[in-house]
Amino acid sequence: MTSIATPRERLLRTAAELFYAEGAAAVGVERLCKAAGVSKRSMYQLFTTKDEVIAESLRAFGPSTVAAYFPGPAADMPPRERILHVFARLEEQAGTPSFHGCPFVNTAVELHDPAHEAAGVALTFKKRLESYFHEHATALGATDPDLVAAQLTMLFDGAAVRAVMRAEPLGGLALRTAAGILDHAVP
Amino acid sequence: MTSIATPRERLLRTAAELFYAEGAAAVGVERLCKAAGVSKRSMYQLFTTKDEVIAESLRAFGPSTVAAYFPGPAADMPPRERILHVFARLEEQAGTPSFHGCPFVNTAVELHDPAHEAAGVALTFKKRLESYFHEHATALGATDPDLVAAQLTMLFDGAAVRAVMRAEPLGGLALRTAAGILDHAVP
Repeated sequence: MTSIATPRERLLRTAAELFYAEGAAAVGVERLCKAAGVSKRSMYQLFTTKDEVIAESLRAFGPSTVAAYFPGPAADMPPRERILHVFARLEEQAGTPSFHGCPFVNTAVELHDPAHEAAGVALTFKKRLESYFHEHATALGATDPDLVAAQLTMLFDGAAVRAVMRAEPLGGLALRTAAGILDHAVP
Repeated sequence: MTSIATPRERLLRTAAELFYAEGAAAVGVERLCKAAGVSKRSMYQLFTTKDEVIAESLRAFGPSTVAAYFPGPAADMPPRERILHVFARLEEQAGTPSFHGCPFVNTAVELHDPAHEAAGVALTFKKRLESYFHEHATALGATDPDLVAAQLTMLFDGAAVRAVMRAEPLGGLALRTAAGILDHAVP
């Protein structure tokens, strides 16, 4: 099967991969263009600035990043299992060498500027995770689904940061803590 | 009162401030030296690489960063209040424009390399926070102080990330969640 990616597609995919593995601030335009096999001139014909590339690559690959933590659309799971599935996936991911934390958190941290376009995009995807928790916490009959959704999101981010800092698997810590939050969410 | 800081002191203080506000990867040697009023030549006489400056500035200012979340040594507080004090301070900090999250988390995220010297230094200070939680969870009579300490640390990091991404105060969410963890920690 031949895949003929356009320069734009190659740039966005390479940006998503390199920025995730090495950092949006650390990877310069020079290196990005070389890795994507696109000239700097072509890049600047497609995007005004590197900042725009950061934002666009998150927009392009954010949906699949988030969806990878959710059960497939056909999955027949009760709400509690739907929530725990996210943490089971995180436990799996956090144990692999290719795990560098949450790309949305990383982007926000690296940019140091909530007004940056890409920081806004990152927040949109983080809110999508929280909405997912909210939806299923509500279905579960949680007394305060807003609180539960926020707590699960903080747990997700704190656990991802832990795995990055320690460079070791979570050993069930995230899954166990999520289960504890859900145990106390319902009266 | 005149303070005559050495070039080394000026570099480390400026590095700690700039790296925290703008990012260790984003701030180049050029800008760092200019802001510190030190020539690049002098910098490279004092430090082998920028990486060494990152590690040394964390080593120099890490202790006061951590201590700022703890009650003063003279404080007469029961263990539960000692733990909650950390989250009360985080709630205060997270509401200010100068808050950019946890500098240890930021450094680890920005470097994308757990083998980097500064990532090791960052982890040391993060473990100091977790040890503090462990000590007081034990004093509180927690059934599983290891678990409680890890959960409180994940909450701290997840809450700091939340405040950074949303660029808004936590509104009591971190403090309330910490209190909930402690409520269930003791039989």
